[in-house]
Amino acid sequence: MEFHVGVISGDGIGPEIVREAKKVLDQVGKKYGHTFNYEEILMGGISIDTHGVPLTDEAIAQAKACDAVLMGSIGGNTATSPWYQLPAEKRPEAGLLKLRKALNLFANLRPAYLYNELREACPLKDDIIGDGFDMAIMRELTGGLYFGERETKEVDGILVATDTLTYSETEIKRIAIKAFESAMKRRKKVTSVDKANVLDSSRLWRGVVDEVAQDYPEVTYEHMLVDNAAMQLVKDPRQFDVILTENMFGDILSDEASMVTGSIGMLSSASFNDTKFGLYEPSGGSAPDIAGKGIANPIATILSAAMMLRFSFDLDQEADAVEAAVKQVLKDNYRTIDIMPQHEADRATVQQVGTAQMGDLIAQRI
Amino acid sequence: MEFHVGVISGDGIGPEIVREAKKVLDQVGKKYGHTFNYEEILMGGISIDTHGVPLTDEAIAQAKACDAVLMGSIGGNTATSPWYQLPAEKRPEAGLLKLRKALNLFANLRPAYLYNELREACPLKDDIIGDGFDMAIMRELTGGLYFGERETKEVDGILVATDTLTYSETEIKRIAIKAFESAMKRRKKVTSVDKANVLDSSRLWRGVVDEVAQDYPEVTYEHMLVDNAAMQLVKDPRQFDVILTENMFGDILSDEASMVTGSIGMLSSASFNDTKFGLYEPSGGSAPDIAGKGIANPIATILSAAMMLRFSFDLDQEADAVEAAVKQVLKDNYRTIDIMPQHEADRATVQQVGTAQMGDLIAQRI
Ligand SMILES: CC(C)[C@H](C(=O)O)[C@@H](O)C(=O)O
Ligand SMILES: CC(C)[C@H](C(=O)O)[C@@H](O)C(=O)O
Repeated sequence: MEFHVGVISGDGIGPEIVREAKKVLDQVGKKYGHTFNYEEILMGGISIDTHGVPLTDEAIAQAKACDAVLMGSIGGNTATSPWYQLPAEKRPEAGLLKLRKALNLFANLRPAYLYNELREACPLKDDIIGDGFDMAIMRELTGGLYFGERETKEVDGILVATDTLTYSETEIKRIAIKAFESAMKRRKKVTSVDKANVLDSSRLWRGVVDEVAQDYPEVTYEHMLVDNAAMQLVKDPRQFDVILTENMFGDILSDEASMVTGSIGMLSSASFNDTKFGLYEPSGGSAPDIAGKGIANPIATILSAAMMLRFSFDLDQEADAVEAAVKQVLKDNYRTIDIMPQHEADRATVQQVGTAQMGDLIAQRI
Repeated sequence: MEFHVGVISGDGIGPEIVREAKKVLDQVGKKYGHTFNYEEILMGGISIDTHGVPLTDEAIAQAKACDAVLMGSIGGNTATSPWYQLPAEKRPEAGLLKLRKALNLFANLRPAYLYNELREACPLKDDIIGDGFDMAIMRELTGGLYFGERETKEVDGILVATDTLTYSETEIKRIAIKAFESAMKRRKKVTSVDKANVLDSSRLWRGVVDEVAQDYPEVTYEHMLVDNAAMQLVKDPRQFDVILTENMFGDILSDEASMVTGSIGMLSSASFNDTKFGLYEPSGGSAPDIAGKGIANPIATILSAAMMLRFSFDLDQEADAVEAAVKQVLKDNYRTIDIMPQHEADRATVQQVGTAQMGDLIAQRI
């Protein structure tokens, strides 16, 4: 089959890690008889440098016309004034929010699990890790505080800034369905996170999720307050399967969950609307400090490409092959610098490789 | 000297742990020649049961008339309908928000540190703990999303709920000053946490905190995005001294930080306005599952009483004595059940005691 893949290489390490994901996809194409046609789309700092804005309408149209989009990372700000004082149209991340909205990508799925080979990198003690954990955050991505109306105005000579957090029944219902559907293919548990003891939006959230839950009697379902969830992720991550939550809580908790695994360079992410289209990207950032050095870990991006094969192209066998190749490369003791063992003694047992070599090693195992 | 202490025993384990704090305060009084007069104030579930609301205006007036208030914990809901469907006036936590506002308690200080004797309870690996960490969260407590206007309405037959997040320059400035003042008495570092890449309120926050920082040239000052802060607390808690943040981020991060220490039963908290008055309470919750069993850890409440001595009554020597007594009791190997060693082998080295016995042991060491 032939697929039209939009590619947003972006800034920082983005171009390097995306290159390796394409390498692996091409190997999948060769082996299984598919063709992936790539179309580069400008976004973020590089788009500001080229077009003066982080995302043009043409770029949005390009992305919409693709079967799926693979992204590196957005960052890279070339302006000289303090970044947070810049108007939105000059901040690279603004492109990301605009793209999510334009493509209606309301569901963000971020798996966070522990690789047995990388237990040592996990910040948690061995008794807490136990025989490992494997959770997925389903974050609402186009509503709430990040997309509410905002305003900064002067009242009696004093600046006052307001952001608004709005959710409708419709928005909550569709993300809840995604979470329960996802749980049905996993360990059949959903933990819905909110702050229903304070927020109106959270009380509506609970009510709607309660209703959706009734359609999934096989799924174990619970509520958790966000402050407690932030604690439980550290105390006992094994208790979680799918965590369902709104936009900002999901932003915070998914990053915390990634860090709890100890290897954010291994974690992929996917954003969906109600079609087969998806936007796939690594969980980590643009890491400008190591950009261009050829040492960034491409695995999260390669696993994001695997998610694309599975969810947008229905190529389960091919996705399995990529995931197996990643596991094999770890078993074969290859590591990028970010996942090298901490202790001197353990270092001798593995071989440190760069970005391109890691891509080659994974492609060879497809 | 004579002090008038309001006591909100509250629900769950509240009455048991407050009793031990009073025991220790009375011992301080005996030794140093002070009198603490206590006045019980009803709030939370017990106030709902007695007066039908979680906090009466009379209770607020009582609290206002005290030199300081010591609180156990609020929870305990006797209603039969699902709790989040209850109107605010029937939810116990609502009393807490009302009290904070009525007393203008805009600054919440929560220390989170590792007791060397309790390293084993810390969920983090030994290399991350290093020689320990000691941070304090300064959380804005009367503004932002938890106190904004909210509304749930029907739009074209669909329920839509909105909460609003507002901060003024004035509100940000006063909490920033508290954070920098606190840092000056500690390791002179402030990390201000926001989401300035998205929120207007966070951009105002940064601007105002930047200005306040100029008055404290000795303090090392940095910004951190909230999603990154949630990661850094797990990855490297040693980097933090004072974390300054708004209400909701502070709610989430202070609970995460407590859990990172591994012993939330040891952590106190204080809420301030612009006078000497303060509200002092343990960081943990009402723990209804163990209420009445005599096994709850009273140390967090006893340390909250020590903060009261220090900050509201200017009794530094007395506060030091309480803190030293707590450390001594740990060195003497007494533990409540929540801080007992996990491993069988280590258990033989310590002695498990109940709530009242722990209070006695600490009082004896004053
Ligand atoms: C860059 C920022 C707007 C974005 C977000 O918070 O959504 C990022 O942190 C993420 O999680 O993808
Ligand atoms: C009970 C609740 C309203 C409260 C809060 O979130 O402020 C609690 O979680 C806390 O942190 O004191």
